[in-house]
Amino acid sequence: MKPPLLVATKGWDPESWAASIRTLLPDRTILCTGRDGLYHGPDHDLATPHYVLAWKPPQETMDRLSGLKVIFSLGAGVDHICALTRLPDVPIVRIVDADITGRMSEYVVWQVLHHLRRGPALRKSQAAHRWFDRPPPAAREVTVGVLGFGVMGAAAADHLMRLGFKLSGWTRTPRDVAGIAMFAGADGLDAFLAGTDILVSLLPLTPETRGLVDRALLAKLKRDGPLDGPVFINAGRGGTHVEADLAEALTDGTLTGASLDVFETEPLPSDSPLWDLDNLVITPHDAAVSDPPALAKQIAEQIEAFERGEPLKNRVDPKRGY
Amino acid sequence: MKPPLLVATKGWDPESWAASIRTLLPDRTILCTGRDGLYHGPDHDLATPHYVLAWKPPQETMDRLSGLKVIFSLGAGVDHICALTRLPDVPIVRIVDADITGRMSEYVVWQVLHHLRRGPALRKSQAAHRWFDRPPPAAREVTVGVLGFGVMGAAAADHLMRLGFKLSGWTRTPRDVAGIAMFAGADGLDAFLAGTDILVSLLPLTPETRGLVDRALLAKLKRDGPLDGPVFINAGRGGTHVEADLAEALTDGTLTGASLDVFETEPLPSDSPLWDLDNLVITPHDAAVSDPPALAKQIAEQIEAFERGEPLKNRVDPKRGY
Repeated sequence: MKPPLLVATKGWDPESWAASIRTLLPDRTILCTGRDGLYHGPDHDLATPHYVLAWKPPQETMDRLSGLKVIFSLGAGVDHICALTRLPDVPIVRIVDADITGRMSEYVVWQVLHHLRRGPALRKSQAAHRWFDRPPPAAREVTVGVLGFGVMGAAAADHLMRLGFKLSGWTRTPRDVAGIAMFAGADGLDAFLAGTDILVSLLPLTPETRGLVDRALLAKLKRDGPLDGPVFINAGRGGTHVEADLAEALTDGTLTGASLDVFETEPLPSDSPLWDLDNLVITPHDAAVSDPPALAKQIAEQIEAFERGEPLKNRVDPKRGY
Repeated sequence: MKPPLLVATKGWDPESWAASIRTLLPDRTILCTGRDGLYHGPDHDLATPHYVLAWKPPQETMDRLSGLKVIFSLGAGVDHICALTRLPDVPIVRIVDADITGRMSEYVVWQVLHHLRRGPALRKSQAAHRWFDRPPPAAREVTVGVLGFGVMGAAAADHLMRLGFKLSGWTRTPRDVAGIAMFAGADGLDAFLAGTDILVSLLPLTPETRGLVDRALLAKLKRDGPLDGPVFINAGRGGTHVEADLAEALTDGTLTGASLDVFETEPLPSDSPLWDLDNLVITPHDAAVSDPPALAKQIAEQIEAFERGEPLKNRVDPKRGY
């Protein structure tokens, strides 16, 4: 028998992941936690897995995995693993997958177009039975700035450039990308913001990015663009923005509109003031859902390559957080 | 002096067109109608223009243009010209322009993504402070069918294919397009509809297309797709659909959603029942607005080429209507 693996997911159904991985790795034992992320069998079971496929794994479950060799995150982000108090000293691998990247591009293109085309104002007009006779600006007049310009940002930027938008990007460390005005580090942030009409955040959640998008940052966005003010779209992690500041910015005109797929607390509590802002589009953290059949293949291939002694791809630096 | 031209626009500001064309053809007289499309000067003025740049030109204005050689439509459609009772026997030229084509692609991509991502249901959920925990299908599971697959349809299809959608197209006469399942003529229409999840109409308004999208046609769309029913998007001409049938289809589940940029009567009357349908997105015929500075250049170039004896591009067959 080949080394077993554990699917440990909190809040998600572990069985759909187990079913997908079982068809690809039929000659192994595949253990599952409950939807609480806890394993309800005996300790000696958990001494056997070399691999854990994890989404928000509880500390208790991770502590019991005494034979662990690799942690696979079931999402593109790994903050749900790096946040553990005691992180096992084994490689952490994240998902970099065409399916997730494609879905994220879709979401970003959708929401950028929604604000270019004044979707929130059109909706108000429709409710009032009013013909909204004010044509949208051309895409070429609008700069979309991607904060946290990685694999997903590059894919979304590619679609947006083909649609005619101007693009810029910001990364922690300097990077060159053809056709895109790139900015880097704390020193480059203000210049990046000053040229951005629509700010799209795809930032991972790390100690450096927590609460980064606050009132002071939003006030630095370009104010004289063709959209009556800047727009903010967050499809990264909710912990990177400050919701009280966003609500204020959307009310006092600092932002003309926003779209949030991620929140400080998820699901967004029903008493959040965000729900009632009519220039804010709320989506339920489904911009880029992890689809087990599409993603299990990549994990199975990595496990087999690892056992042949090949290096793991898409490793995360737990200190950096991505 | 070179031959003069007349800008004849009803409902639009003729001066913005005149200003744009004047900078490109400075050595000619440029006459303008009022916003009513009527020329308020003497008849002998209107004997001089060789060209009319027209948007919904009144019959009376056209009748007075005794020296006319070419009619330039100021929009991609020419139904507003072909509908004249007495059409002068001169070439009619329509706009085929990257700016209009790009804007139309934007609109189609925006609304296709809006329905893929269940925009109308998310909006209802947000109003109820409810987290909508139902991830959207993947683009690859959805077929977008373009009814009236011309230059604009091809450009929109190209973007949608890159985003992962399956594409099909319908034209009056057979046509092959790489990567797209093409259907043609009355015989091909039912098979085209049966495979279509999201129907995008870019049809011109002609005697053949008037009222084409009715209850019977909508009932032939694919019903077992991943979107809880088919979707209809019309960015062509309002006269090609039957609004009473659309309202019924959106209410009884024949359609799960729709987006209309064009209407039987524009502006849409404030007492239309369409305004209150919460699965319908209404936009004010601004999917692809004609931007004078972007389009005047093409018209000026055609006039100069015509005077050198070169053939006109983008000529319309007035009998066919496009």
